[in-house]
Amino acid sequence: MNREDYIGIFDSGIGGLTVFKSIMDKMPDEKLIYFGDTAHVPYGTKSHKQIRAYAMQDVKFLTQFNLKALVIACNTADSVASQTLKENFDLPIFGVIEPASKKAALMTENGRIGVMATAATCKSGSYQEMIHKYNPKAKVFPLACPLLVPLVEDGRFKKDDKVVQLILTEYLDSLKEHDVDTIVLGCTHYPLLEDAIKSLVPDINVISSSEAAAEHLSHGLIEMSLDSQGTKSEYRYYVSDDPEHFKENAGTFMGKPLEEEVLLVNDSDL
Amino acid sequence: MNREDYIGIFDSGIGGLTVFKSIMDKMPDEKLIYFGDTAHVPYGTKSHKQIRAYAMQDVKFLTQFNLKALVIACNTADSVASQTLKENFDLPIFGVIEPASKKAALMTENGRIGVMATAATCKSGSYQEMIHKYNPKAKVFPLACPLLVPLVEDGRFKKDDKVVQLILTEYLDSLKEHDVDTIVLGCTHYPLLEDAIKSLVPDINVISSSEAAAEHLSHGLIEMSLDSQGTKSEYRYYVSDDPEHFKENAGTFMGKPLEEEVLLVNDSDL
Repeated sequence: MNREDYIGIFDSGIGGLTVFKSIMDKMPDEKLIYFGDTAHVPYGTKSHKQIRAYAMQDVKFLTQFNLKALVIACNTADSVASQTLKENFDLPIFGVIEPASKKAALMTENGRIGVMATAATCKSGSYQEMIHKYNPKAKVFPLACPLLVPLVEDGRFKKDDKVVQLILTEYLDSLKEHDVDTIVLGCTHYPLLEDAIKSLVPDINVISSSEAAAEHLSHGLIEMSLDSQGTKSEYRYYVSDDPEHFKENAGTFMGKPLEEEVLLVNDSDL
Repeated sequence: MNREDYIGIFDSGIGGLTVFKSIMDKMPDEKLIYFGDTAHVPYGTKSHKQIRAYAMQDVKFLTQFNLKALVIACNTADSVASQTLKENFDLPIFGVIEPASKKAALMTENGRIGVMATAATCKSGSYQEMIHKYNPKAKVFPLACPLLVPLVEDGRFKKDDKVVQLILTEYLDSLKEHDVDTIVLGCTHYPLLEDAIKSLVPDINVISSSEAAAEHLSHGLIEMSLDSQGTKSEYRYYVSDDPEHFKENAGTFMGKPLEEEVLLVNDSDL
């Protein structure tokens, strides 16, 4: 592994692009490769065994390139398959759950933290466990928010959208009842809703797991002397199905249309 | 094929159970086998090539049983893979799109028909084409309703749910602008929203594609003298991933908890 190598980033689909974008913004000199397993999205409704098998495939594909680090940019894969990946690949592996958990655990003043995530992530208990690692006394309130991914994927996340407001208000009201002073956005899609959420709960700390993951990766690479500086960045995008659809929708997550080509990886090459 | 054989019914996931249930209700003496391809749900976001490959696998699995008829209980598979299946399997094949289209085409008085469906089904143009087959002069207004499947899968479809009301009102307003007198619910999840929709647009005909499919199948079997009468019904359920999750959620679609076991079919057996 050397500083010139790639950072591999994978997700079940397109949401991991919020992690990708946070890494781009924070580490503008890095070479990044994204793999979105769009043939098998979403992972959240699949069995653990199946998710681990897909995650292994995803990383096998990415290790065809010279990687210096791997980022699991998918909350479900991070909670279910992180251990399996660490056992099978000799690479520094970074996730999305630990960085946001640590940040929330250290930032809360009243020790009450809400976690908004998919049903699968909530059920896994990963955020609860990881927050307790850094703050054993914290009370964690996980809240499954199944309507938020579909909203974001429908391009609806602006704070003046009435449907967005009504659904968020309902979710946030149930967290406010628990008197949380900090909320973790524990799904890669949710950073797009950050403005809308902040406008509804201006007095609560809102932590994006995508941004926290990028900060954590940056510190990690610097510690291992693997960070690139002054080198030419490079961005590559691969998916396992329907690259056109991915390219069309990527703009929503990246904040601007994707210029690069999105390449298809056939199932047989995985 | 004889009257005692099974009717095979498949969908990408769980939504096809509304078709299954309509068939149970209309033909209480039939033996039904359901296959939900839960390892690959949803089909709507996949490429056509991939959807056809999955549909072929689904039907290959079902043809291990003695089938007298096959029902494609999935709008996406019906619009994309119906032709491929008819070319490859020597079986009477019934779908969901033609029955509802025919019913709407004959029922409309002002010739203006709205179709609520997923983005993929709308884009396929299948309903438009099929409605025009029976009523060449009809004006068809397809409307992609991407938030409805997530709502239903979240168990939210009751007419007094404020989120359901707000989202439906938005969708229905855009159809009312086109002055439609008939609306097709062109997705297997939508029949659960039928009451809520009817309460918002009481003067518009609402046609469930699941119910229309069951009526069409019933007529078809009688015509071919393949209908069962006085025989003992039997219901079997197979899925390609996470049978527990399927069983848990099946009640929403069946109107009561599923008593039967849901069996897992491994990917390698497909």
